[in-house]
Amino acid sequence: MIRFSNNVSLLRTSEIRDLMSLATRPDMISFAGGMPGNELFPTEEVDEIYNSLPLDLKRTAFQYGPTPGFPPLLGVLKEFLRAKGLPVDTNELLITTGSLQAINILAKVFIDPGDVVVTENPCFIGAISAFQSFQGHLHGIDIDADGVLLDPLKAFLAQSREKAPKFFYSTPNFHNPAGILYSEERKNGLIEVLKEHQLPLIEDDAYGDLYFDEGAARTARPMKATYDQELPICYTGSFSKILGPGFRLGWMLAPREVYEKCELIKQSDDACSPTFTQVLAYEFVRSGRIHPYVAKMRGIYKRRKDTMVAAIHRYFPEEIKWVEPRGGFYMWCACPPELDLMAVLRASIEKGAVFVIGKTFDPKGTDNSHFRLAYSHTPEDKLERGIQIIGEALKDALRK
Amino acid sequence: MIRFSNNVSLLRTSEIRDLMSLATRPDMISFAGGMPGNELFPTEEVDEIYNSLPLDLKRTAFQYGPTPGFPPLLGVLKEFLRAKGLPVDTNELLITTGSLQAINILAKVFIDPGDVVVTENPCFIGAISAFQSFQGHLHGIDIDADGVLLDPLKAFLAQSREKAPKFFYSTPNFHNPAGILYSEERKNGLIEVLKEHQLPLIEDDAYGDLYFDEGAARTARPMKATYDQELPICYTGSFSKILGPGFRLGWMLAPREVYEKCELIKQSDDACSPTFTQVLAYEFVRSGRIHPYVAKMRGIYKRRKDTMVAAIHRYFPEEIKWVEPRGGFYMWCACPPELDLMAVLRASIEKGAVFVIGKTFDPKGTDNSHFRLAYSHTPEDKLERGIQIIGEALKDALRK
Repeated sequence: MIRFSNNVSLLRTSEIRDLMSLATRPDMISFAGGMPGNELFPTEEVDEIYNSLPLDLKRTAFQYGPTPGFPPLLGVLKEFLRAKGLPVDTNELLITTGSLQAINILAKVFIDPGDVVVTENPCFIGAISAFQSFQGHLHGIDIDADGVLLDPLKAFLAQSREKAPKFFYSTPNFHNPAGILYSEERKNGLIEVLKEHQLPLIEDDAYGDLYFDEGAARTARPMKATYDQELPICYTGSFSKILGPGFRLGWMLAPREVYEKCELIKQSDDACSPTFTQVLAYEFVRSGRIHPYVAKMRGIYKRRKDTMVAAIHRYFPEEIKWVEPRGGFYMWCACPPELDLMAVLRASIEKGAVFVIGKTFDPKGTDNSHFRLAYSHTPEDKLERGIQIIGEALKDALRK
Repeated sequence: MIRFSNNVSLLRTSEIRDLMSLATRPDMISFAGGMPGNELFPTEEVDEIYNSLPLDLKRTAFQYGPTPGFPPLLGVLKEFLRAKGLPVDTNELLITTGSLQAINILAKVFIDPGDVVVTENPCFIGAISAFQSFQGHLHGIDIDADGVLLDPLKAFLAQSREKAPKFFYSTPNFHNPAGILYSEERKNGLIEVLKEHQLPLIEDDAYGDLYFDEGAARTARPMKATYDQELPICYTGSFSKILGPGFRLGWMLAPREVYEKCELIKQSDDACSPTFTQVLAYEFVRSGRIHPYVAKMRGIYKRRKDTMVAAIHRYFPEEIKWVEPRGGFYMWCACPPELDLMAVLRASIEKGAVFVIGKTFDPKGTDNSHFRLAYSHTPEDKLERGIQIIGEALKDALRK
């Protein structure tokens, strides 16, 4: 009687959902979710903004808005992006319901069932689901501390000439889950490879503003800022990490040809993103409140990262390897192949600390040789205890 | 270099987009958009709510929420729906980013390219786009004042036994664009036909709360409330007409089997609907503010409808036929076949009034024998003048 589409064939509920749901106990020290700490949100700034909205603007906030976005927000966001060197005048900007929707729209615009798309391995779980929900076949290319490995990428593209992939999806700046920042050299090299194969790039830059030093800030310059003339690059970004995920606001800056398709899809997806939060975000950017707030967040996330790394030096067994983040929310820890990460996770949760195991981020869903630590939503005074718990669980498992 | 998917093949920008964009002049009297008037939104109630939110709830509003929805909102919404007789305990409730997203998710869950879906003709434009964006083949069944015509529906389903349609999509209460309310008898008859063919029903009830008399209220009882045991019914609703479209909040009440697929798709679409507006909507329902507000809106929309109908009696030529609405936002006007509606629209816009021509709502995009008047966002003191302009344009065109 009910006959479902093939779109749902590749999606499934996470096997560890029940385990993770245990991890929401109030005393749990969480390194799991990729979100800001609740105590970090700019509630006072938004109170000021809300309470000084003129009545007509407030009424506008209750109403449908144009599909591309609330025009004043598009205006101030363009200036915000222009300051990063982005080519806002020769591309089109679309406000989306979180940057996940931007990725989902691009998936719909590009992917027919069976189409190959290339991602990094590991890869943002939301992008994996979005691409699979349109029946894309994902091929993940391994990364190192400087970015995606170019030789396996070249080899894969060379052997795929008959059925060319639709795009390459990358999170070059403070990668989720791997925490790394692509080097400038690797960005250059990547663009050369993509140009040779005429492969469009989706550049996901949800974390680029959260650098921990000026060198990282320079290196985090968007590829779209530098290489827009060379390749079709669809650049996505988000207010989730610089205002609040509950606003569900992201954006896409794309060549007009791509944008036009995306706007039609956006129209049929949800008509427009929430005007209510767009009006608040507009005032947050327009008034300049965004700049001191993001600067403060950089400092807080850097201190959390420093505290966590210091604790890791104290408590983790030496078999665990990692690259220290220069921005963003995440650190990615490599484990010896013999380690049973599920057992470590179970033992950690029992003692009160939770993280995310690696295969969640593997496009093939199998590689469990890493785990992700998010330090973004854990207060400093709990980071050390949490790392101690995980460190002991790791040592116990390695000793077995 | 850029190779798009087939998903975008059926979507196109409206031909009359440029014409309609002229119609946003500030002095234009609009019968076009299907939205509440800006002056009708409960801004004072939401101010009170916002300014009495405890800090921890406000922080929650900035954060990601669970994919199915903010749990307290799910709780109070269940009681709101239970009061309509809906089977909230034996189905699952999902908060969506407007009810358009609910329809879009159902489209994704059901439609493979080439699948047939059955709709009313005319049909909500958002549903047409959503179904076409998954490459569904739409078959529209004509309606009369009591609902969809059962004989052509039966005939179509009988001839489709080899490739059975995936679902029937219906807006039985205060239809968009046709303004009609299905009679009880027609609802019964429809369910019998769907049962015989084991065809799931998507029941779009975005306007059911906006009845103009108690008889209409009774007749607007959801089919899902009465027939849930007989057929898989996916019921969708919206806060857009009873709080504000800018909140982008709707819902879907669906059998568990369908819900589970929908939740996975929702997760990959935008992770969750805006927590910020979910928290406000929760307080709007929990505090009971929703009831007097909706009652007041019923009165206002009824007065607007009465004023418009009185003006139509004065100014429209007798060749134009319509059914007086008993609720909702819209009235659907039938024209003689020889009338050039595009010419009427152009002349009306020139003189300062705008409406929507019928083929916008035809699943095949061709039938232009009707037009839609929305009285929901036009203040009473402008309705008469607007109808006079349209009436004169109609008379001019008929005289030619």
